[in-house]
Amino acid sequence: MTQSDRPTEFDLIRTYFAPLAESEAGAFGLTDDAAVLPIEQGRELVATTDTIVAGVHFFEKTPADAVAAKLLRVSLSDLAAMGATPHSYTLSLALTDVISSDWLGAFSASLGRDQDTYGITLVGGDTVTTPGPLTLTLTAMGTVLKGEALRRNGAEVGDDVYVSGTIGDGALGLLVALDKLTQLSKSEADFLLDRYHYPRSRGNLGERLFGLAHAVADVSDGLAADLGQICQPSRVSAVIQSHLVPLSDAAKSVLSLDTQHIQQILGGGDDYELIFTAAPSVAEKLNNISEEIGIPVTRIGSIVPETGEDVVINDERGEAILLLHNGFQHF
Amino acid sequence: MTQSDRPTEFDLIRTYFAPLAESEAGAFGLTDDAAVLPIEQGRELVATTDTIVAGVHFFEKTPADAVAAKLLRVSLSDLAAMGATPHSYTLSLALTDVISSDWLGAFSASLGRDQDTYGITLVGGDTVTTPGPLTLTLTAMGTVLKGEALRRNGAEVGDDVYVSGTIGDGALGLLVALDKLTQLSKSEADFLLDRYHYPRSRGNLGERLFGLAHAVADVSDGLAADLGQICQPSRVSAVIQSHLVPLSDAAKSVLSLDTQHIQQILGGGDDYELIFTAAPSVAEKLNNISEEIGIPVTRIGSIVPETGEDVVINDERGEAILLLHNGFQHF
Repeated sequence: MTQSDRPTEFDLIRTYFAPLAESEAGAFGLTDDAAVLPIEQGRELVATTDTIVAGVHFFEKTPADAVAAKLLRVSLSDLAAMGATPHSYTLSLALTDVISSDWLGAFSASLGRDQDTYGITLVGGDTVTTPGPLTLTLTAMGTVLKGEALRRNGAEVGDDVYVSGTIGDGALGLLVALDKLTQLSKSEADFLLDRYHYPRSRGNLGERLFGLAHAVADVSDGLAADLGQICQPSRVSAVIQSHLVPLSDAAKSVLSLDTQHIQQILGGGDDYELIFTAAPSVAEKLNNISEEIGIPVTRIGSIVPETGEDVVINDERGEAILLLHNGFQHF
Repeated sequence: MTQSDRPTEFDLIRTYFAPLAESEAGAFGLTDDAAVLPIEQGRELVATTDTIVAGVHFFEKTPADAVAAKLLRVSLSDLAAMGATPHSYTLSLALTDVISSDWLGAFSASLGRDQDTYGITLVGGDTVTTPGPLTLTLTAMGTVLKGEALRRNGAEVGDDVYVSGTIGDGALGLLVALDKLTQLSKSEADFLLDRYHYPRSRGNLGERLFGLAHAVADVSDGLAADLGQICQPSRVSAVIQSHLVPLSDAAKSVLSLDTQHIQQILGGGDDYELIFTAAPSVAEKLNNISEEIGIPVTRIGSIVPETGEDVVINDERGEAILLLHNGFQHF
């Protein structure tokens, strides 16, 4: 049916993607017009869409398995920030001529591994050709108990501000990829690069925060920017102590080389940790959950009445740190 | 926060897209990490994703409102083919530098009009930059009563084969856009171009076909190809009488100029009509529904036991028409 040696859309789907859809009957092996998905009674659908473009959101040279992991985990992180349990996803691939069978094999294998880890299944999508950069769009669907979705807009004056994991590794990993942190040891550079390529989605934490957190977001555009996205709709401000922000050993090494890297750590993005606010009275409960699920949770500051600034970051001496770029504008 | 004069992602969303999300509370004005969507009890979610690329699926010069209409209606057509009622959609825009405020205004206004017509609401998405070409992905979500989704795989020997509306106008409209049908009158050319740019989604018909149709698909890749997609999973073949295929007056004019255009009419795509099979015993019921909803439904052939060919098309003299390209391979 096609004149070219290139596999048809049907072949591509059958070879690389239909196997990823096997565990969901309503995906119909990716052979029908749409997927039909049961949503458990008493739960609501949570949906989020993200697009990544080669040369804009990832490097042309980024390995296929890292591209797949980032694409899926960025959306999983959005589900985590809503407290949703992953359910299924659709995937749209605008492929260029240079995309090989090997690339597609590694890409789909990486998705398969993440499907097992995060409990999500491919249920549909589209495959098209593009003359220009590889462009990937993923719509992740999850579910949450009715009325229990976590929001950004509930932060209250007096709340503590928490983050999961460590902050800044994603942005520093980008610097490693750009060959801008050459003084770092290989193991530290590899650690940061891994964090940049393979963010950890914090779904296990998000699912536990209902009734405890007042406002939740994920750290995608940078700690300051994403906390600002909590403060604005909540009509509050936040004061962060920079020395409380949890750093990996590798990030500490980077800071010891040049303290100016605090800019990337606090202002850069790509961490995909959760940032949230909660009343001081639930601190112990949060601590217990953190220990139970093995995800560190660290208090980094407080919510205060609305000031002119959404987020103020003070250093150990109480002096404000001025971020040169307040988060990464993906657009 | 941004150095450039270009509006930020937040500005773009607020100006052009948040107004499209107003009627769904769970879209949170497009300001949160994901949308939260209630699915009515007893119904299932139906999800489909389509991507269109400038220069591949539409012309660079295609007006913004036509791009928007095609993007949304292609997905609505998939929902229609499942018998689903439209619910909501996410939209991902990979925008190039040449996309202007005027373009975005016309694009979002067109989406707004179609939202009113088809009863669907924007609930989320992503906006990114791309060095080229403009790439748009839409995930449409609908709902269907549990167990009542229409499938492609239920065609039975002895079934009649039906199509809605008229066939071939989309493919002929593409020829008009390519300046390849210059002998046509202006009004006929405009009619075909309109059908190419603004397909009609047949949701009103799809919603009525449960319990009547055995297998349903939409005509996106061409009558023969899409009927083949019914025959293969149903393990049957189809025999179509070409003189029964319903044609618009404009398509009849094209055929009278050159009978070879039957190739585009039967093999081309972009009609977004429904093609379905049903037992002869429900013919009158289908006729009544067709009259009630004002969408023509025409019997064009029969389902026969599986032969070597999925679809055979005979002309009035009973001679087989050989399609030079059996449907349009989007990939």
